[in-house]
Amino acid sequence: MRCSIITIGTELLIGQVIDTNSAYLGKVLNSLGVQVASRFTIDDNREDILSALKRSLEDSDIVVTTGGLGPTKDDITKNVLAEFLEVSQYFDENQYELIQKFFTKLGRTTTEAHKNQCFFPEGTEFIENKMGTAQGMLMRHKGKRIISMPGVPYEMKYIMEHGVLPMLAKEQEYYIHHRTIRTAGVGETHIAEKIAEIENSLTNGFSLAYLPSLGSVRIRVSAKSKDRINLDSSLDRIQNDITDILGDMVYGYADDVLEIVIGKMLLERGLRLGLAESCTGGKIASKVVSISGSSEYFEGGLVVYSNELKNQLLGVKSETLAEFGAVSEEVVKEMVSGTIERLNVDIALAVSGIAGPGGGTIDKPVGTIWICVGSKNRQSTYKLQLLKDRKKNIEYTSLFALNFLRLFLLREE
Amino acid sequence: MRCSIITIGTELLIGQVIDTNSAYLGKVLNSLGVQVASRFTIDDNREDILSALKRSLEDSDIVVTTGGLGPTKDDITKNVLAEFLEVSQYFDENQYELIQKFFTKLGRTTTEAHKNQCFFPEGTEFIENKMGTAQGMLMRHKGKRIISMPGVPYEMKYIMEHGVLPMLAKEQEYYIHHRTIRTAGVGETHIAEKIAEIENSLTNGFSLAYLPSLGSVRIRVSAKSKDRINLDSSLDRIQNDITDILGDMVYGYADDVLEIVIGKMLLERGLRLGLAESCTGGKIASKVVSISGSSEYFEGGLVVYSNELKNQLLGVKSETLAEFGAVSEEVVKEMVSGTIERLNVDIALAVSGIAGPGGGTIDKPVGTIWICVGSKNRQSTYKLQLLKDRKKNIEYTSLFALNFLRLFLLREE
Repeated sequence: MRCSIITIGTELLIGQVIDTNSAYLGKVLNSLGVQVASRFTIDDNREDILSALKRSLEDSDIVVTTGGLGPTKDDITKNVLAEFLEVSQYFDENQYELIQKFFTKLGRTTTEAHKNQCFFPEGTEFIENKMGTAQGMLMRHKGKRIISMPGVPYEMKYIMEHGVLPMLAKEQEYYIHHRTIRTAGVGETHIAEKIAEIENSLTNGFSLAYLPSLGSVRIRVSAKSKDRINLDSSLDRIQNDITDILGDMVYGYADDVLEIVIGKMLLERGLRLGLAESCTGGKIASKVVSISGSSEYFEGGLVVYSNELKNQLLGVKSETLAEFGAVSEEVVKEMVSGTIERLNVDIALAVSGIAGPGGGTIDKPVGTIWICVGSKNRQSTYKLQLLKDRKKNIEYTSLFALNFLRLFLLREE
Repeated sequence: MRCSIITIGTELLIGQVIDTNSAYLGKVLNSLGVQVASRFTIDDNREDILSALKRSLEDSDIVVTTGGLGPTKDDITKNVLAEFLEVSQYFDENQYELIQKFFTKLGRTTTEAHKNQCFFPEGTEFIENKMGTAQGMLMRHKGKRIISMPGVPYEMKYIMEHGVLPMLAKEQEYYIHHRTIRTAGVGETHIAEKIAEIENSLTNGFSLAYLPSLGSVRIRVSAKSKDRINLDSSLDRIQNDITDILGDMVYGYADDVLEIVIGKMLLERGLRLGLAESCTGGKIASKVVSISGSSEYFEGGLVVYSNELKNQLLGVKSETLAEFGAVSEEVVKEMVSGTIERLNVDIALAVSGIAGPGGGTIDKPVGTIWICVGSKNRQSTYKLQLLKDRKKNIEYTSLFALNFLRLFLLREE
């Protein structure tokens, strides 16, 4: 079963509103085993809706539309649907009663515009919407189906979850499942080479994709089958095989992020973390704190932006700052020792660098970043050389530093 | 000039990644006066890409695609483009050199896959991408143009802003210009009521939209005209009229963010800022530091997550913590005094609260947040009562606190 999604609305097209409806629809339809063939976003005008319906029905069994079902002037989806299906519209007394009841409940009265909302293309089957006044609509056309829903996300979701998905689930022959393996610190190409053998040995119905983002590559393995149990066990096996090969490049699965993984590691070992940030300016701390329950293992952090604070709050020696500069291996090492001592923590992470675009020198160009992680007994340092974009440098450094901390913890008994 | 957008990638189609690229593309193309005709999201497979290209070129002068230009197996956009254009592919030595240089700079080496990345359809014109290895590509086809870019958002944006948009801007007949007025601390309805008269008096070709986001409402005034100079002066006048009515609710224009505005105020007055964050965990500091040159006015910050650190690093009295609790007006006031003293700054901002979802009590439910801003002579406090979502609470509090600091600075001589 192939499905196309059409989202209707100028606000989507010109990027005033980000189209989360299509992402939701793609996700729920896909996990039901419905193949999402394409997604269309169009203006709410007659020609574009007609053309999108025509095109979508060419290669899909089901077309799902959202938007343009409200009571105002620019809501024309129903008229265009009737034109497309070559049927007339009728006034639905039942729907009008439902709307009147809905408004009475809210202590409001209906207007003429709501009456206009009760004209429907002949042959419309309704899919209940308890969240608003525009019902979901199902129309049949040459053995295919068009499902039309309002664009308000929680109304659309109600109709999907209570009407459309249960209906489609009954008809499904295939399941499509995924596994996502999350890696950090290595590029897409490098990973692809390492797991080439697995990728090449995937049988029919299985596929593999790389989703790179700043500092991280997710590997997604997908499979389609009638046999749900076999599907899951095969995917689990592939996930394990990939993890075996990639080893500690893999930091997690599904929705894991580095700060969650690190939080679990610290909690399990009963270690408390402290941070000393210069160029990342609190970004690493804010990631750690974004996880609920982080107070169990996070003591706090210092954003020591000036040299004075590095010296005064962390005890970084003035001579070290003078001799090697704030962005140096020596300084991040003293920042770690200072954090462990002054914040009384087990593990400390320190970062000092030139995020840019200003502040670079010939010896230390913009993008030079020193990172140190350490415990009382051991320290580990790393020098990053990044490019010129300040925000990217700060974000990348934060992710890299968290991964560096993860690798340190892996090696810490 | 009509344009269609095609975003390529299974991850978009199945909703694993929300398609922010098309929203961005819609926005920037629209503001240039290019009519965005439709948006397509498709799987990275040959048939779907071919069909989307064909359909999009039917009713558009320009087709913009993102995705599928990377070095791995699932990146097939270029092959399909060559097939669609009925041209062969050639190995581009220059591009290969560029990639090698790019990797050398990062201290890494290229692989065979990167070599494969250097095959291009004959006739490709390149649009520079300084953020990654996949260049933007421009191909001409029967008087129309196809622009193909990588799907990584910051790479795509670089290519648009430095190559595509300047090129298209030169060709525009109509100008569509916008002014964005940024407000904080008041709701959309309230603002709409205040400026209703201005909105009602807008003449043909002018329009006004409200774009609410967490803690902020942007007012966008748009106008379309062939007369560029008149357009700009009219828009400036409307912007001034709105600012006059809204007063200090307005914190900036266009791309201003609170941290930029505050940075300028501090710099002008020669004041240095220090931060003391508990529940926001470095989020405010990271916003301040995200602005280049912030070292001129930002001394540093403390993420005092534990009570011990509040006492030890900031001198918040143990008795105050015991009597009023960490989330109290008394504690944030002492945090401000402590920050001014220990960090030797002129202005300090302190936040302590319960971000949730855990940690709430009957007296202090989740979402209770105390904020204090102060100088040596004056302190100002505020209590927020938010809801249960941790990430939203942290983000909203950070924005609110920065706006609170802005209002404090406005009143500081």
